Formats: sequence, structure tokens, C-alpha cells
Amino acid sequence: MTKKIRVGVNGYGVIGKRVADAVRIQPDMELIGVSDVLCDYRIALAVGNGISLYASTREASAEMAAAGIPVTAMLPDLLDAVDVIVDCTPAHIGADNLARYRDQGVKAIFQGGEKHALTGHSFVAQANYAAAVGRDSTRVVSCNTTSTVRTLTALKNAGVLAKARGVLIRRATDPWESDHSGIMNTIVPERRIPSHQGPDAQSVDPDLDVVTMAAKGAHTQNHLHYWVVELARSVTRDDVLAALRECSRIAFVRESDGVVAPNSTIELMRDLGRPRGDMYEVALWEDILTVNGTELYYSYTVDNQAIVIPENIDAIRAVTGTIVDAAESIRLTDAALGVRRNFLAEPRKARTESGTPTS
Amino acid sequence: MTKKIRVGVNGYGVIGKRVADAVRIQPDMELIGVSDVLCDYRIALAVGNGISLYASTREASAEMAAAGIPVTAMLPDLLDAVDVIVDCTPAHIGADNLARYRDQGVKAIFQGGEKHALTGHSFVAQANYAAAVGRDSTRVVSCNTTSTVRTLTALKNAGVLAKARGVLIRRATDPWESDHSGIMNTIVPERRIPSHQGPDAQSVDPDLDVVTMAAKGAHTQNHLHYWVVELARSVTRDDVLAALRECSRIAFVRESDGVVAPNSTIELMRDLGRPRGDMYEVALWEDILTVNGTELYYSYTVDNQAIVIPENIDAIRAVTGTIVDAAESIRLTDAALGVRRNFLAEPRKARTESGTPTS
Amino acid sequence: MTKKIRVGVNGYGVIGKRVADAVRIQPDMELIGVSDVLCDYRIALAVGNGISLYASTREASAEMAAAGIPVTAMLPDLLDAVDVIVDCTPAHIGADNLARYRDQGVKAIFQGGEKHALTGHSFVAQANYAAAVGRDSTRVVSCNTTSTVRTLTALKNAGVLAKARGVLIRRATDPWESDHSGIMNTIVPERRIPSHQGPDAQSVDPDLDVVTMAAKGAHTQNHLHYWVVELARSVTRDDVLAALRECSRIAFVRESDGVVAPNSTIELMRDLGRPRGDMYEVALWEDILTVNGTELYYSYTVDNQAIVIPENIDAIRAVTGTIVDAAESIRLTDAALGVRRNFLAEPRKARTESGTPTS
Amino acid sequence: MTKKIRVGVNGYGVIGKRVADAVRIQPDMELIGVSDVLCDYRIALAVGNGISLYASTREASAEMAAAGIPVTAMLPDLLDAVDVIVDCTPAHIGADNLARYRDQGVKAIFQGGEKHALTGHSFVAQANYAAAVGRDSTRVVSCNTTSTVRTLTALKNAGVLAKARGVLIRRATDPWESDHSGIMNTIVPERRIPSHQGPDAQSVDPDLDVVTMAAKGAHTQNHLHYWVVELARSVTRDDVLAALRECSRIAFVRESDGVVAPNSTIELMRDLGRPRGDMYEVALWEDILTVNGTELYYSYTVDNQAIVIPENIDAIRAVTGTIVDAAESIRLTDAALGVRRNFLAEPRKARTESGTPTS
Repeated sequence: MTKKIRVGVNGYGVIGKRVADAVRIQPDMELIGVSDVLCDYRIALAVGNGISLYASTREASAEMAAAGIPVTAMLPDLLDAVDVIVDCTPAHIGADNLARYRDQGVKAIFQGGEKHALTGHSFVAQANYAAAVGRDSTRVVSCNTTSTVRTLTALKNAGVLAKARGVLIRRATDPWESDHSGIMNTIVPERRIPSHQGPDAQSVDPDLDVVTMAAKGAHTQNHLHYWVVELARSVTRDDVLAALRECSRIAFVRESDGVVAPNSTIELMRDLGRPRGDMYEVALWEDILTVNGTELYYSYTVDNQAIVIPENIDAIRAVTGTIVDAAESIRLTDAALGVRRNFLAEPRKARTESGTPTS
Repeated sequence: MTKKIRVGVNGYGVIGKRVADAVRIQPDMELIGVSDVLCDYRIALAVGNGISLYASTREASAEMAAAGIPVTAMLPDLLDAVDVIVDCTPAHIGADNLARYRDQGVKAIFQGGEKHALTGHSFVAQANYAAAVGRDSTRVVSCNTTSTVRTLTALKNAGVLAKARGVLIRRATDPWESDHSGIMNTIVPERRIPSHQGPDAQSVDPDLDVVTMAAKGAHTQNHLHYWVVELARSVTRDDVLAALRECSRIAFVRESDGVVAPNSTIELMRDLGRPRGDMYEVALWEDILTVNGTELYYSYTVDNQAIVIPENIDAIRAVTGTIVDAAESIRLTDAALGVRRNFLAEPRKARTESGTPTS
Repeated sequence: MTKKIRVGVNGYGVIGKRVADAVRIQPDMELIGVSDVLCDYRIALAVGNGISLYASTREASAEMAAAGIPVTAMLPDLLDAVDVIVDCTPAHIGADNLARYRDQGVKAIFQGGEKHALTGHSFVAQANYAAAVGRDSTRVVSCNTTSTVRTLTALKNAGVLAKARGVLIRRATDPWESDHSGIMNTIVPERRIPSHQGPDAQSVDPDLDVVTMAAKGAHTQNHLHYWVVELARSVTRDDVLAALRECSRIAFVRESDGVVAPNSTIELMRDLGRPRGDMYEVALWEDILTVNGTELYYSYTVDNQAIVIPENIDAIRAVTGTIVDAAESIRLTDAALGVRRNFLAEPRKARTESGTPTS
Repeated sequence: MTKKIRVGVNGYGVIGKRVADAVRIQPDMELIGVSDVLCDYRIALAVGNGISLYASTREASAEMAAAGIPVTAMLPDLLDAVDVIVDCTPAHIGADNLARYRDQGVKAIFQGGEKHALTGHSFVAQANYAAAVGRDSTRVVSCNTTSTVRTLTALKNAGVLAKARGVLIRRATDPWESDHSGIMNTIVPERRIPSHQGPDAQSVDPDLDVVTMAAKGAHTQNHLHYWVVELARSVTRDDVLAALRECSRIAFVRESDGVVAPNSTIELMRDLGRPRGDMYEVALWEDILTVNGTELYYSYTVDNQAIVIPENIDAIRAVTGTIVDAAESIRLTDAALGVRRNFLAEPRKARTESGTPTS
């Protein structure tokens, strides 16, 4: 095997830790280390898990040492040692980081909390991988936008998409959060219509005619999207399903199988043995999708913690130019992560081989 | 004053108790009594509040007596004494009751849990009051449908409505429920698209081109609706606002006033001194409503416990034929209940005049 | 009637607005005005409700004017015009305010968010009203502590209290809050055992042997307390109930009446016609309370928004010295607010007499 | 290796599927199959996961066949093929099953939803393994009781336990449930004090002086317990910690590490790579535990879905008599499941080896 891509992760939070773990199981990548400023249980587990920890600031380094957490070196040292850094710092911090990355000649991948203008390129593998090849940086769009682009691109590729109007009910905060971030017994509409996800999808594909409205719901995991799509021509329901099946990262679920809500998919992922119960796919209800004349209606749920992980992996290959063909990278990523179009059909391996720690 | 309409209420639950209180403060109505089968704290309070209690069954009568709750008589006795009965029994029970009501020559009003076919007429005051005048029965549609018909009728009356597509995030259960009815940390899509509310709105006005999709959110009070409306012609945002203002039961709220979510409106109703914190109006976000070309987007919230109360009151006048003009009944109802288009501008009336049953 | 006590309220939030409304219906008090820094819907409603609004800062005054909200004058002007100010500003701000109040010779009442040391006196009417008479200031303890002192004082007065150990499951945030304050799908223990409520109860009565542990539950209204009490001597369950009945602000509820959880009491208060659905009483489950040997176990629920309102009213009379007898003030307050020992037995009064501000 | 214990699981729900997976990774056990009556996604995944599926009824068999799920045989066939059956059917159904198991000469293990009288023995490995050796059946007590017995037995074994009073805030429903089982925005006390968990603990160890009170909280995963323990003698905090450390299935967590609530432990388990995010240990807050004179206060959280899994595994060895020494079985079970006293100290294996499906 040729030399592996050396990858660093800056920010070991909800996204960062998943990117780090995903990098570790890619055949063509090596995780050099992660950098952070905190020293709580999550950082302690990273170290326990064999990950090299770097400190993003002098203060953090001192605190980590005081907490008995072994620090390999500082963030600039990590940047020295990698080909590409995946920036998973909180929203809007990445902007300051880009200059540092460029100074040290490191390719950089940002998350959806940053603005499109930061890198000038917003990434969804299936839609515009080629345009990211060889760039010094790109931005993986947010979980909501990623799911929007995946589904609408599938319809567009089949020539059936005229325009799409979506209502996005987002999870209100992350499941690990314990205070000062949640909403309780209400649903909070965003302050403006249209919401930002529509224009954000257009930052990936300017040709999409898409408008979104969004609210935060009183649950902590998974978004639920409803879409009204005007079809470009009269097609059957089977035509639409076939179009969506072309995308390897859309999985059909069925209400008739007992998958009746976002929390069903969380249980399903746990039963599948997915790490952290993560779902990389858009889970779209096959038996709820409806075509009525030239209108199409459907609903799907998105694991806001995991859906962008495959895109980050693909983006690593794109910016480093190690693979120039989108399909090839997607195939590699999907195989490594176990991405599938149908959660129930394919046999899971015995858990002693694949899903459970054994001594 | 002429003779008051004698009203009975069958079923003293979430809707029934509100209808009973609303009847008591109408200048042209008299509450003869309520009938139920339970004898918990809610029934005890009805009696404490000076309402005559009837038992719907022999068993209930015995239990009420055993619990020390004074029972006036049985349901047939109540029917004997009234001009009209408002049936607020649980969904699908009303169907059996209609025959009894007809047998005793009593006009009847049902709720949205019953099917349209039961009475052959589905009622929203502003849309089709006239058609209910003198009927032996009608059905006040559900909270979601009532709000849909109010808003779409306002747009239709102004000649700007082409078609409407809505996503309805419903409250999952009533706030008083303590077990075995809630959803937790999820959002549950309805099993079918389109959901039943669209056709239900068409049972009131067959000309409406309306499709709905619905889910249950993890909160206990108020629905949140999002709408995408195709306008019949190019109009300004002010034109749309003016059209909506024509309906006396749509109130504008503003995110800039701090009314940012359904629970804001609950707090607002409490501060207004509304009985039980009830909101009879559709609370539509004025500063979120957007017109883009010939598309209109807006969001509003609906108090699922209270929005149908004014419609029930109007339906009483319609079926008894005491008032034949919709506008006249609506004016009377709105004045008695304190319905308003703007929650902040008008001074609050003393509660004895407008908002509270007194004995 | 003699001259009324002139009262001001500084801070028109969850507690402030309730104190203001409660002052307005006391026979011996006059609300001169409220002062605040915000200008959202709640302030607009205060003005619409006929309350004179003062601005706490120059900036606030300008913003209110810009928002079209009529401002009477500034906070110092309010202080000039009152005998006593009830400080309902957010926790820890009151400390800075006390000097201002003293400078202007105004008696002051603070809330439980402030420390005991601020005024040197912590107040629960039933426990230590006399000690507050004529003081320049006192502090009404928090909702949790108020309920603790009410119940334990009743047991102490009957000579049956040896020691009490409590577990307090608090509501996580206020129901009007829409963001960044809630917890979701978890329960969050306080960082230390014992929690602060035990010592806080001792700041009212140093003789209480009380230890508390506390957590935040995933609900927005009402606390739930569990207590294990070691009795000073062997007594019957009826003795304990009789002891608790001596306190006019403890109301018994029964699971057998359908009052099965805190949200049942919220529904009950709404049905009672209480303003804002407020419950001033500790609602203690009579049929769950158990005596086993010399151990007593019971559970009650506390409306965190309302329980301290009667105490604030009594504290006004105490510090101004207008009534020196605790029982007399408590009787006056309870009559005006409609406080009762039994929610179901007594007929509801007309709301203009007992429960609602009128203009 | 000697012949493996042949195990069947009747009921493939929340507990059953975990027992099945745990059996599969024990060195001395073999999972022959599972039996159920449903055919939803969970059953489909079991089959996909290589588990032999039996039908518990003729109707179920037909439905499974219709759904395309391969059925190995019927429940009696499964019983024919196993040494021991773990009954994980819904509460109170097991009672009818015991006769069937006895008829076929199969040892049986029931769950805490059944009454103690069913088998006459209630099991917690650390407390009374020996008494179960060779019995024809036993009952693994519920999640709440298991945690109670583990902690109190540790204190008893160290000779420091006099009596214990606990308040148990339970999760309200399971996370996969999507309807008709949850509570919303409230906390629901049990109908009686004391609650059943105290007597249930005494069914394992009659010498425990334990009283419990319980409520359901508005969250879906993990219970939170608070305990007030009267110590048998004056001991230090370190003595107490040492006593608790003697139990291999109690793990200390620390608020200072950021483990601040039950949902922190869920995130922690996911980060540890535990299957389904399961926590088999009682997670007790080391830095919140307090000793004050002869009183001890502490709090811990319990994964209601997983804590009984190690006990079920041990119970299999006990009733089959394959291992007669409790410590030996506990060691085997803990090693296979990765049970640990400290979640942060021990290194996790690289996930490619142990925690992630790879292709």
C-alpha cells in the first residue's frame, strides 16, 4: 500500500471524535492526533483509546497535565505532522484557524458552522467532489444541508426535480448536553423564513431551487424533514424511489417494519452495532413517500451527529488529491463505515468479530 | 332580552369544560348542565363552580354518589331540558349519541374527532356559518383544521390563494395527562402523507387546494404550522397581512416582541388573564411571514385546547337559528370571550366583563 | 380605611409580575408602579393592564420609548413614591440595590436568589413573621425552602419533628423560557450533597435538623419533594395530618381524586380559575403520606412561580410594621389570594373577590 | 473446553436482545436461539445478525413467514434444545411459562417483572449466587432493585450499614418507544409510599433495612437514585469508598470529569464503544458522596436497559450448576462484558479490533 494520508483533527467534540474514529478505520488514512482545549472525560477516553492528544493552547496544555492527561505536543506540532487537518472546532472559530493552516501548508476541512466564504467551496461528496480535488480547503456543509443536497441531487440527477420546499424540525441540542442549551416543552421556530439551509444547499449547487423553513423540536437527537417537491415531469412513485436509490447514502426505512420515528432509527443503529449508534445515511420513509400528480411528498430523519462523517472522509481524499474520482472515494468510505441502502437486508457479522469489546 | 338558548354539554373534558364556561358568559345562552361518566377532581370542581352535573350512565351515577358528588339527574333528563347539546365525548363515541339526541329532538354539535359523514356538515364560523343555520346538527372541525380554514379562507376571500401546502407539528398529548399517552425525546411523523387535515379542511370548503403533512412533537401544548402558499397573483406582503387581518380570530404576534415560540403565547395568555390561559386566536408571526414572488411562507401557533371554543359557541347559534348572520354571531362571541386581533395594543378588560365565568 | 401601604416592584419577571398583581388586590396596599429594563411583550401587557412603568436605567428608558411603551419615570422616582420596594431582580443583583433603597429610606424585600447575609433576616410568614416587624429589609426565601419551612414548622409546632431528610426534584427552567436554559431527556443532580436548601431553611429557623439533596428534572413547572422524617415520638398518621392542617398554606390533594402528579395540580389551578394558574399552597398528597413506626414519609409538589407570593405580601406588612400579628396578616393575604386548605371542597368565589386583579 | 451451556432466550425485547448478545460472547455458553411473537425491525436484525429465530405461537410463525423472516422452529423445539431458558417476556407473562419450562425439564431464569413467589428465589450475583446454584429457576430482580442490592450489600459486607432510605427517580419509558407510553413535562410519583423496590431488595436479602420512594421522571434512559444511609458506626468517607469499591459492578464517576448527569454516562458508554451504549455498572458519583457523622448520602445512575445483563449471565451458571463459586462466575462475566470499576483509567482497544464493524 502506498503512503497513507496523515490526518489531524482539531476539536474533539461531537463531530471531531467521530471523524477521528472514522479516519482510523480507513485503509488509506492514518490519524496522527487530535487537538483540543478541554480535559474532561471525553478527552480522557480519547487518550485511553490510544489517540495522541495535542493541546490547542498553552493554558489547555497546563490543565491537561494537571489532570494527569498525557499531552503529546501542541497544535502547531500536530499541523507539522499532517497532510490535512479536519477543523471541528465550535462554529466561527475555524475562520481564525484557516490562516494558521495555510501558514503551515496544511490542507484544511471545515464544518458547516463556518461560512461558505471562508473556503469558497462547500462540499457534499455526491454533488461536487470533483470541484474540491486539490483545493487547499473546503467546508463540509451542516447535517441538515447535507441531507438536503443528497436527496435533491438524486432527484436532479434523474431529471425529475423542478423545485423543493422543505420544513426542517431540528433536534434542539446534543444528547450529551446537560444544561443551559435545551428547550423544554415547546417548539421554537427560526427567526426568519426562509431559513439558512436553502441558500446553504445552493452554496453546494447553485442550480437547486430550494426554500427551507426550520424550527427546533423538543428532542435531542435526529432531525426530521418534510419536503414538498414540484416534479419536472410526471413520473411514477417507483421512478422517484429508483432515483433516490441511486444515492448510496440514502437508506429506505418503513413504518410497516416498526421504524415509526427518529428514535426507532436510533434503536435500529444500536441493534446494528454501529459505533456510538451512528447513522451515516439519510433514513427516508419508503412507505410514506407519496406522488400526487406532479407533486412529491416525503419525510426522512437525519442523525445530526453522524451524517457528515462520510463527507468529511471523502473531503480528505478530495483536497489531498489522492483520489480524484468521487465514486471511488464514496465506495471506499461506505465500505469502511458500513454505509448501506437497506438496514435490514444485509446480514450483520457476529458481534464477537465486529461489534463488541472482548478481552 | 328574549329567551336564552338552553345548552347542555355532554363530556366534561378538555373541550367540554371550556365550552361550558364559554356558554355561561354568553349574553344569549344558559348552561343547563353537563353530563359525564367520571368523578375525579375536574368533576368535583365543576360542581364547586356551580354547574349542574348529570350522569351519563347508571354506573357513573352510583360512583358519583359514592364519591359525595351531587348528581342532578341523568343525561336523558339533561336532553329534555335543553335546546342544544354540545357533544364533547371522546372521539368516535359521538356517533352513537346522535340518534339519542335526534330521538329527544335536541340539536347537536359534535367535535372534530367525529367523521364529517356523521352530521354531513363541518363547521368553521367564518367559512360556512350560513350553511349550518337551522340544521339539526353540525361538527366543529378539529383545532388543526379550524386554524387551517381560518387562515386559508382569509387568503381566499382576498382572492390571493392558489394552493397551500402545510406541515403541522402537533402537540403530542394534553398537558393534564400523566401517563401512557406521551412521546418522549422524539418526533413522530404520521403514518401517511398527506395527513387527514387537508381533506378535513375540504369538508368545510371543497374549493380549497390544500395538502398537509403532520407529525407529533415532544411538547404538550399548542400546534405549530408551517405553510407554503402559491399565490393566485403577485401581491405585496402588506396585501397578505391585510387579507389575514380581515379575520377577527387571527392575531398577529411578533418575534421582536419576545413572542418567539408557542410557549411564549401561553405565558402571554396567562399575563392577559385569560381563563385557563386559553388562546382562541390563531397566533400568526407577522414579522416572520414572507412573500417571495408568488410564494407566501408563514408560521403560526394554535392552542389546541381553546381554538374551537368560539366556533362551538357560534355553532350553537347557527343550529338553533337564533342568529342567522355569521358576522353578528362572531361579533357577540368575540366580545364575550375577549377575542382580539392584537394581544398587546388593546387594554385588558376587567375579567368579569370578558373572560371569566362568574356565579 | 386608613392609608394604604404604597408598594413598588423592581423587576417585572416571573415573581415580580405576580407580586404586583397580588399587591393590587390587597385591601391595605396600593401598587405605585413597577420598574424594569426590558421592553418585551410582558412589559407591554403590564402597561396595558394599567400598571405604571418605571425604567431602571437610562438605556431602558430610551428603548421603552422607542418601542412605544409609555414610561412614567425612573426607578429613583418610584422609590421616592413608595413605602416599600419588593426587589424581584435576577439573583445577586439585589445586593447592589439595597444601598440605593436605604439611601432613599425605603423598606426592602428581597427574594431567595439573594444571600441571607444581605438583609440578615430570611422570611417565612408562618415561622418568623414577628422577627421581621419593623426591619428595614428581609428576604423571602426560595420556593423550595418556603415549602420546606412551611411543612417542617407545622410538624415542629406539633412537637413531632426530630429530623428531616429531603430529596428535591426541581423544575429545570421556567415555562416561558424558549432557549438556552433547559435540560433535555435527563435529570441533573446538584454538584454537592447536601444541597443549599437545608441550610437555607435553617436561616429561617436554626433549630430545624434538615438535610436536602436536589436534582433538576426534565419538566418546566413545579418541584416535587420527597421527605423522610424521623418523628420525635410515636404518633398516628392522623396526628401528622392534623399537625400539617394547622398551616393554612398546605393543601391536601389525593391521588384517588385523580391528582396524580404536578401537572394535575396545574390543571386543577386552571380549573379553579386561579390567575395564571398559580398555586400558592404546598400541595401535599394526603393518601400517599405514610407513618411507619417513628418514621414519616410524604411527598408534595410546589408551584415554583407562585408559592412565595403570599410570603412577599406578608413581608410587606411586617417590614412596614402595619400589622404586627402574623396570623392577622396571613388571614388577610389568604383571603385576598383565595388560599385554601382543600381545593375541592369549598365553592369557588367569584374571581373579582378573590383571585384576580381588576382595574 | 468442556461442553458449553446451551441457552435460549424467550422474548427478544429490550432485555432479551441484550441477554442474547451477552450469551454469545461468554466462553462457556452457546446461544441456541431466541423466541418471540413479533416480526418488526428488531426481529429482522436478530436474524440478520445470525441468530436462530423461533416462533412463540402459531400466529407469530405465520406472520413471520409472511414477512419473509426465516423461522427455525417453534418455542417448544427451542426448549428441547437448551439447558436453560432466559424468560424476557413482558411482566407477568412469565408466570404461565414456568410450567412449560418445568414440563420440558429446562432450567429457567425470569426477570424482575415477575413476582418473587414465582420461583421462590430472587437473584443478585454478589448477594446470593450460592443459594441459586442448582435450583430449577430463579428471578433476576429489576434494574432499580439490582442497583440497590449491589450498593447496600457492599456497605453491609463492610459492616457499616444500619438502615437505608432511598428516593428513586426512574426513567419513564424506554428510548425506542414512540407512542402511548411516555410522560411529558411532569414527574409522576408512585401511588404508594413505600414503593415496591425496598421489599423487593429484601426478597434478595431479608436483613436489609431499606425503604424506598419512587417517581417517574421525564426522561427515557437511566434511573437516578438518592440515598440517605444511617451508618452502623462512625467511619470516614474513605472507608465508605473502599467498601463500595469491593463490588466489581459499581463504577465511580466524577462530576469534576464532566460526568454531571445520567446522559453524561450514556455519552461515555458510547465513547467507550460499548454495544448499544450499554452500562452494566452502577455509576456512583465519587465526588458527590458525603459522610456527615453517622449519616451517608450518595447518588448514582443506573442504565435500566443493561444493569441486569451480567446478573442474567451469572444466573445461567448458577441454575445450571456449572460454576458454584460466585466470584468465579462474576469474574468470567465481567471479563466477557468488559465491566470495569473505572471508566477512564483503563485503555480501550483500538476500535478496528473491538468496537466497529469492518468489512
